[in-house]
Amino acid sequence: MDGMRWDGWGDPAATVELPATLAQLLEHALGVSPAAARPPVAPEAVRLPEPSLPAAVRDQLAAVVGGGQVSTAAADRVRHTRGKSTTDLLRIRAGEADDAPDAVVRPADHDQVLAVLRVCAARRVAVVPFGGGTSVVGGLAPDRAGFAGTVALDLSGMDSLVAVDPVSQLVTLAAGVTGPAAEHLLAGHGFTLGHYPQSFEYATIGGFAATRSSGLYSSGYGRFDDLVVALRVATPEGTVQLGRAPRSAAGPDLRQLFLGSEGTLGVITEVTVRVRPVPTERACTGWQFDSFPAGMTALRTLAQEGLAPSLLRLSDEYETAGAAATGGIAASGCLAVVGYEGRGALRRRPDVEAVVREAGGSPLDGDIGKPWRQSRFRAPYLRDALLAAGALAETVETAAFWSGLLPLYEAVRGALLDELAGLGTPPMVLCHVSHVYPTGASLYFTVVCAQAADPVGQWRRAKQAASTAIVATGGTITHHHAVGRDHAGQLAAEIGPLGLAAIRAVKQRLDPAGILNPGVLLADPGA
Amino acid sequence: MDGMRWDGWGDPAATVELPATLAQLLEHALGVSPAAARPPVAPEAVRLPEPSLPAAVRDQLAAVVGGGQVSTAAADRVRHTRGKSTTDLLRIRAGEADDAPDAVVRPADHDQVLAVLRVCAARRVAVVPFGGGTSVVGGLAPDRAGFAGTVALDLSGMDSLVAVDPVSQLVTLAAGVTGPAAEHLLAGHGFTLGHYPQSFEYATIGGFAATRSSGLYSSGYGRFDDLVVALRVATPEGTVQLGRAPRSAAGPDLRQLFLGSEGTLGVITEVTVRVRPVPTERACTGWQFDSFPAGMTALRTLAQEGLAPSLLRLSDEYETAGAAATGGIAASGCLAVVGYEGRGALRRRPDVEAVVREAGGSPLDGDIGKPWRQSRFRAPYLRDALLAAGALAETVETAAFWSGLLPLYEAVRGALLDELAGLGTPPMVLCHVSHVYPTGASLYFTVVCAQAADPVGQWRRAKQAASTAIVATGGTITHHHAVGRDHAGQLAAEIGPLGLAAIRAVKQRLDPAGILNPGVLLADPGA
Repeated sequence: MDGMRWDGWGDPAATVELPATLAQLLEHALGVSPAAARPPVAPEAVRLPEPSLPAAVRDQLAAVVGGGQVSTAAADRVRHTRGKSTTDLLRIRAGEADDAPDAVVRPADHDQVLAVLRVCAARRVAVVPFGGGTSVVGGLAPDRAGFAGTVALDLSGMDSLVAVDPVSQLVTLAAGVTGPAAEHLLAGHGFTLGHYPQSFEYATIGGFAATRSSGLYSSGYGRFDDLVVALRVATPEGTVQLGRAPRSAAGPDLRQLFLGSEGTLGVITEVTVRVRPVPTERACTGWQFDSFPAGMTALRTLAQEGLAPSLLRLSDEYETAGAAATGGIAASGCLAVVGYEGRGALRRRPDVEAVVREAGGSPLDGDIGKPWRQSRFRAPYLRDALLAAGALAETVETAAFWSGLLPLYEAVRGALLDELAGLGTPPMVLCHVSHVYPTGASLYFTVVCAQAADPVGQWRRAKQAASTAIVATGGTITHHHAVGRDHAGQLAAEIGPLGLAAIRAVKQRLDPAGILNPGVLLADPGA
Repeated sequence: MDGMRWDGWGDPAATVELPATLAQLLEHALGVSPAAARPPVAPEAVRLPEPSLPAAVRDQLAAVVGGGQVSTAAADRVRHTRGKSTTDLLRIRAGEADDAPDAVVRPADHDQVLAVLRVCAARRVAVVPFGGGTSVVGGLAPDRAGFAGTVALDLSGMDSLVAVDPVSQLVTLAAGVTGPAAEHLLAGHGFTLGHYPQSFEYATIGGFAATRSSGLYSSGYGRFDDLVVALRVATPEGTVQLGRAPRSAAGPDLRQLFLGSEGTLGVITEVTVRVRPVPTERACTGWQFDSFPAGMTALRTLAQEGLAPSLLRLSDEYETAGAAATGGIAASGCLAVVGYEGRGALRRRPDVEAVVREAGGSPLDGDIGKPWRQSRFRAPYLRDALLAAGALAETVETAAFWSGLLPLYEAVRGALLDELAGLGTPPMVLCHVSHVYPTGASLYFTVVCAQAADPVGQWRRAKQAASTAIVATGGTITHHHAVGRDHAGQLAAEIGPLGLAAIRAVKQRLDPAGILNPGVLLADPGA
């Protein structure tokens, strides 16, 4: 897929219609009338700041990457403005591109990245590493104050398969390879990465690593940070190359310092990942449970008995009803989706089903693999249609240990309901459990309500209420969306002031000029 | 088990006899005659340096932990001198205790550790966190130059079960809990940690974490760093508390910074670990393969198909023959030990055995579980007997990706054979593959030869040859023994100068006075 629409998700040529069932639900349940439709401004009406990059810097960058690879074209700058969170989209649709980069720079390889970083460090130009541009946490909107300019370092040209080790089932990919491109490159060698986050169609290998992405099949294939075996990172101070063995006791695992660093400690340019043979057998089954806690017990038991299948996901009553009402998989109570990829996973199917039945699950008819696969990347497209219709739609995710999962669920759901009702826009709040571990799991909430007059402010208040509930109830501030700007204020609650200070000490050593994605991850670099 | 003998391994009251078969092998194959016996010096002949800790510091420490918990008794100091590597033992048996601590300090809890660190930082006293004292890489022998003294921070009094979360299968243990004590504490709740490194009987939870220990059953239970979910760390600058969920995308995973930090970044005082129900069913089977590569293929296939059982270990021809000749498990070719712990593992047994047979394995008769369990912690006891008999015995371990494992094996084996033959003491070199991952595995070498006139220098040359071969062939400098002083010189080869600089930046922030285990992990703290 080439290029992303500037005002939403997906191919610019495609249009997304709001399903009629959903339009009715919006109007009747949430009071979003057809008259509330909010189309985006025309592309030429988007307000861009004057590019502030000094000509001398631009020339130096052009000397590194070639003149054609430094762009200040308005369309390029708009397409590299922020990411794809709902507030990002609300703002760009309203014509706000105040934090557009001054230029888009497209390096061809690791050495060019190093050279670009040296130029920008010397000239105090902020650098935003830019993969697929799919951040939903403000990971692409750096601080501008105190810098001579900001460039988006677009890595999409670094899209090669660098090395294949079929015996060790390892593949090295350049950072700019997208999810589909990775699968295409690997398929030629009989392998798959099996990493299918919702952003799969656009997000890149480097972005998966930098944000600790987790895919729909994480129970079977692992989180992306589990798949990473080696990393090559370019920093203003030079190259870091890590990973000589599957595991090591050679001190702190520095791979885990760059994973999740969101471009603030260096630019990940190559990633070596574990791959698996392409599965030839698959199955996807649906189950229903009487209650969310009953389903949670089934998921917990599967994970703790080492039986977690490739895909494992449990919707609460509200998400189950919402899906059924809008043409998704029909189930009552709480829907669980259980998927198996490959012979190994299918071998455990009888044991999995025994556990699920014992926990009170009853099977839905037939293989739901086809509808599941057809709908699995649908949410961000649907959000565009919802925003256009005058609804607000966004997600919140967290994770906790099993003993705290239900209290966390209730606290976050309650906070979202209360805050948005208080603002006059009572929402639908849907939730599912996914990314299941022996010690806990993640919760993924979807929130839909009518847009208020100031929808950006409206969501910020709801998000703040949810985040406060998460921190107070002991969940992690993010399980797989990363910190970005949106969670930076809560990072101290997660890792403490000394933990923050440790990351800052590393940043100071690798990026002494502080040019790498300033204001992302670390809220106040001066502290 | 209380207390470790000062001159070797295990209970001071126990004596270890060299088996007659082994004595004969030593004499005939390696030229170690009964006349070469080298008993240790008498305890009172051990040469200790004068304690240099200023009286004022001692008083301040006593004010924190109580007067009885600060000891300068000679026996205490000797028992906290270095660790249990062969060179450590050779030196202490010869009466060398030149790097004994000036005092042994025994804190009762986290807050006392914090207070001790503050005193030592203010007075520039080096602190060696001391768990079971079982380091085999010089992890307990800090630099002394530039410090007002050195204290061993003995954590054995911090030995409580702090919390149990049976739903999440999580347990929090104080750092000083030993392996057997942990199993005893957990058994009361129906759980096991399943972590059985060779040091199990003495090593502690904090030590397992600080060194990234890996146990005999790592294929089933995971490495210790896989089991750790949360950490509490005391540093001279305050407390770091990490781990709010099974996994998170909240930035770099700082747990992975303290895991493997070997007491140089802080003192781990509490560890929350994943536990499992005590297995009620077990099996342990032996297999033989015609060749080491054939066995490696079996192990690799098991790991890549997600079938790795709880215990998986493959000896080369030499280790297999050595075990058979000295009363161990009798097999020809290459012995593989395959163990299953619990229902889940046993469920996969038919699939495991199909893979093993297809790779050319043939089964040994009967369940070898009993001889295996009886001999699994035997090696360090046997080493004492070997050293006393005038033999040199030590181990070398590394890991690599599967495609590089056989070249690594040949390079390290060749380096050890060549170097020791060149010194006039041709060795036996035995090896096994263990700690098996989908992308690679570890190699564990045992080396036995006659002691030269200077056995410490002899081993240092052999070790240097092995380490050079490891670095040149692409292995990791240590898979589960940690860096200590012995591998510190190779850490730059593993993580690069910028990687080292990143760790130093963190150390500078958390331990600005540089008192924490100076010279361990980071060879040159000033650089």
